[in-house]
Amino acid sequence: MLFHTARKKWLTQASVDKKLHTHLGVIDISQIIGMEYGSEIKTTGGDKIYLVEPTIYDFIMKSKRKTQIVYPKDFGFIAARVGLKNGCRILEVGTGSGALTTFAASIVKPDGHIHTFDINAEFMKIAKENLEKAGMYPYVSMHEYDASEGFPVEDMDVAIVDLGDPWTVIDQIHHCLKGSGSFVAICPTVNQIERTATELKQKGYLDIECTELMIRTMEAREGMTRPAMRMIGHTTYLVFARKCLG
Amino acid sequence: MLFHTARKKWLTQASVDKKLHTHLGVIDISQIIGMEYGSEIKTTGGDKIYLVEPTIYDFIMKSKRKTQIVYPKDFGFIAARVGLKNGCRILEVGTGSGALTTFAASIVKPDGHIHTFDINAEFMKIAKENLEKAGMYPYVSMHEYDASEGFPVEDMDVAIVDLGDPWTVIDQIHHCLKGSGSFVAICPTVNQIERTATELKQKGYLDIECTELMIRTMEAREGMTRPAMRMIGHTTYLVFARKCLG
Amino acid sequence: MLFHTARKKWLTQASVDKKLHTHLGVIDISQIIGMEYGSEIKTTGGDKIYLVEPTIYDFIMKSKRKTQIVYPKDFGFIAARVGLKNGCRILEVGTGSGALTTFAASIVKPDGHIHTFDINAEFMKIAKENLEKAGMYPYVSMHEYDASEGFPVEDMDVAIVDLGDPWTVIDQIHHCLKGSGSFVAICPTVNQIERTATELKQKGYLDIECTELMIRTMEAREGMTRPAMRMIGHTTYLVFARKCLG
Amino acid sequence: MLFHTARKKWLTQASVDKKLHTHLGVIDISQIIGMEYGSEIKTTGGDKIYLVEPTIYDFIMKSKRKTQIVYPKDFGFIAARVGLKNGCRILEVGTGSGALTTFAASIVKPDGHIHTFDINAEFMKIAKENLEKAGMYPYVSMHEYDASEGFPVEDMDVAIVDLGDPWTVIDQIHHCLKGSGSFVAICPTVNQIERTATELKQKGYLDIECTELMIRTMEAREGMTRPAMRMIGHTTYLVFARKCLG
Repeated sequence: MLFHTARKKWLTQASVDKKLHTHLGVIDISQIIGMEYGSEIKTTGGDKIYLVEPTIYDFIMKSKRKTQIVYPKDFGFIAARVGLKNGCRILEVGTGSGALTTFAASIVKPDGHIHTFDINAEFMKIAKENLEKAGMYPYVSMHEYDASEGFPVEDMDVAIVDLGDPWTVIDQIHHCLKGSGSFVAICPTVNQIERTATELKQKGYLDIECTELMIRTMEAREGMTRPAMRMIGHTTYLVFARKCLG
Repeated sequence: MLFHTARKKWLTQASVDKKLHTHLGVIDISQIIGMEYGSEIKTTGGDKIYLVEPTIYDFIMKSKRKTQIVYPKDFGFIAARVGLKNGCRILEVGTGSGALTTFAASIVKPDGHIHTFDINAEFMKIAKENLEKAGMYPYVSMHEYDASEGFPVEDMDVAIVDLGDPWTVIDQIHHCLKGSGSFVAICPTVNQIERTATELKQKGYLDIECTELMIRTMEAREGMTRPAMRMIGHTTYLVFARKCLG
Repeated sequence: MLFHTARKKWLTQASVDKKLHTHLGVIDISQIIGMEYGSEIKTTGGDKIYLVEPTIYDFIMKSKRKTQIVYPKDFGFIAARVGLKNGCRILEVGTGSGALTTFAASIVKPDGHIHTFDINAEFMKIAKENLEKAGMYPYVSMHEYDASEGFPVEDMDVAIVDLGDPWTVIDQIHHCLKGSGSFVAICPTVNQIERTATELKQKGYLDIECTELMIRTMEAREGMTRPAMRMIGHTTYLVFARKCLG
Repeated sequence: MLFHTARKKWLTQASVDKKLHTHLGVIDISQIIGMEYGSEIKTTGGDKIYLVEPTIYDFIMKSKRKTQIVYPKDFGFIAARVGLKNGCRILEVGTGSGALTTFAASIVKPDGHIHTFDINAEFMKIAKENLEKAGMYPYVSMHEYDASEGFPVEDMDVAIVDLGDPWTVIDQIHHCLKGSGSFVAICPTVNQIERTATELKQKGYLDIECTELMIRTMEAREGMTRPAMRMIGHTTYLVFARKCLG
């Protein structure tokens, strides 16, 4: 990845004779072959650019998307709240652009696996590209989802639902989760959390918790430190619960 | 783990003849041997308790501590923001009770490793117990930290600092991080972020970002959904940056 | 008002021979007669107490209450958002403990007036006492409210509703408001704002806006400034709209 | 005021032959003479526009400005927190565009008064126009401020400071405030609140409190209610304190 500022960065593959044309001038990509990460490069315009090793965060933030992606603050909290770790088996309903899939795969690999389902073939194609670029495709099985058939997986540690109507798949997911496995729903609206939490309660789920994370950037400057004036007001609520037997 | 409600849960090891005495009555631990996770148990008082597989989250929230722990919302965001994944090599300065160490180890294992440093031998003892209980000790090397000697590790992907004066170790950490590696500081006060960010800027670090996460519980009840009246106002700010060569 | 700390303060009337018994020792009230506001008094225990002129804020925070009061952050914003000022005529439905009534009266006086309605005679008695203590009773007319009869007032500048089901009185309030007059509803739950806003939209109201204010205390200490750990997560949402003719 | 949507509204004075040219078509202002507030008007383009009585809020939000204005959430809370009411005498240091002055005057009138000081003659000219338009100029005395001379007023109930360095005027303000009078500072940065609060503490002020208000719009739509995605992250912190004698 070539980094100029937090807003100007380019994810590209190095190859001989490649040139990247930017508003800062042309960057000669061939020259970076063999360079160490963290090195400084000059554009033809004289601006400084840095060669930075792309992280999973970079891959996600630079991924192709046709849908709203789940944000780092949210998928980070999902990972922390359900205790994602190497070896976990995850059922994801609603692949979208694959941002959450990519992040989850990077954590559960090499021993875990993700089964992700989506109804929209176009989304799945984009998600597949994004997963491949981030090197996470080997840890993911993609399924075209047909609601009437349920999900042909079982003994999952975690199920993550990113649909408009998450309550409609609770029954189908129930059979796929192992005892005390975690259910997570990504719900932008309060009506979704109300209905999902109500349904989970009726089905006897444990430890039902609905939360929202707000993130605020701080502008840290000597003698003038203050929160940023702009802030994202809302991305999504999250609903957590654990499956109970009998 | 035995789960009654989100506030009443017990982490215990099953063994023959063990009985857990709680305010809800006695729980016969021996009976749970061989039970499936998610199963229901009755206390002598008739209350329902559930056998739940402990996750990393449960281990952390139930860990012994002598220090303020880093909260799930914060360590989840650290993982997401720096792209923690299997194989990462992490330098942690300020082990504390080992909560963040436990979580980070669960993600970077089996191929990654954490080198954690603390000046306080008592904290390290507690942290070691917590890591062992969660099964994460094999992925962690614990070092008693002597500021004058620096940290005898190199080529780290990520450095996480949880000290009162994080700016004092930036130089020492610099030598341990690989090019474009991530620096993270956990800073409860605004003065800490101001000073840390200023220092990082002077040292030429890239992509410096200071953020704060606020978490709010939603009480989802049919026809009466609302945010919870109680909320944690603040845990910590986080400072992120990436190392730049030369 | 006698002020020790933000949490220890007493609202009392000075009179000869009066003594106030507190955990800090006895305070001789008679000695404060004739003292200037801001003066220091010593308790028998040697603690410093200050004589402070009670403001409307102090009266409200120290008022008797049987109901949840509307908080300063919320009634301050109501005043700012609808432009309360001397001379305004206000219809209030749901007197409660009279906190909002007291504040609104202090602003619209001497030329404005508040008509406040409540179904609960006990609340009204308490509210009357609170209004009298703050000197605001002359600017308020209290009515026992009978839903079937509507509100016998007209040409109001502002209507403020603090009921569990604010949408049920929109029709009755409509006749009391003057053209382009402001409607305000105090709604703790999201279901209430959803239903109230939907109803207002159907009735052709203008400039419908739903908001929430969060307040956070900052602990300002040299070199250690940070947000307070405790925070009130939620008091209420507010719905604003303006009446449109025809 | 002519209201189309929350974002499209025009504050104008009715007069014969006046026409307002907007992107929605021409509005014949002469036709609105004699109309009742709340009435509907059609533009030549067929759009509906409403005649709305301008409130103090409308005057402020539509005021001319060369400076950042204090926001309704903030000045509403100042009013509520210090108990502004008819009759209060206010010292304002830093007139800016007069937004806070306008709001405060609308509350303290007819018996109260505001003395406002600014160093910048251009700001004062704009503030004067804004005050006149809102009809609040009779309740305000404007002074060009010379720091070396102090403020030639006394016995003020409230002092409000909106300067970059509020701590520099605490001494001068002290002499103008009556005993137990309220001091308020508007401080965008944490460094300002730290220094102001520290100074106030050293000078023996009581009840020092630093707060921040965050406002979030809720999008209330049937079955799809959620917080708005955009939010103002920060406007200012507020510091409150009360003067203590001796």
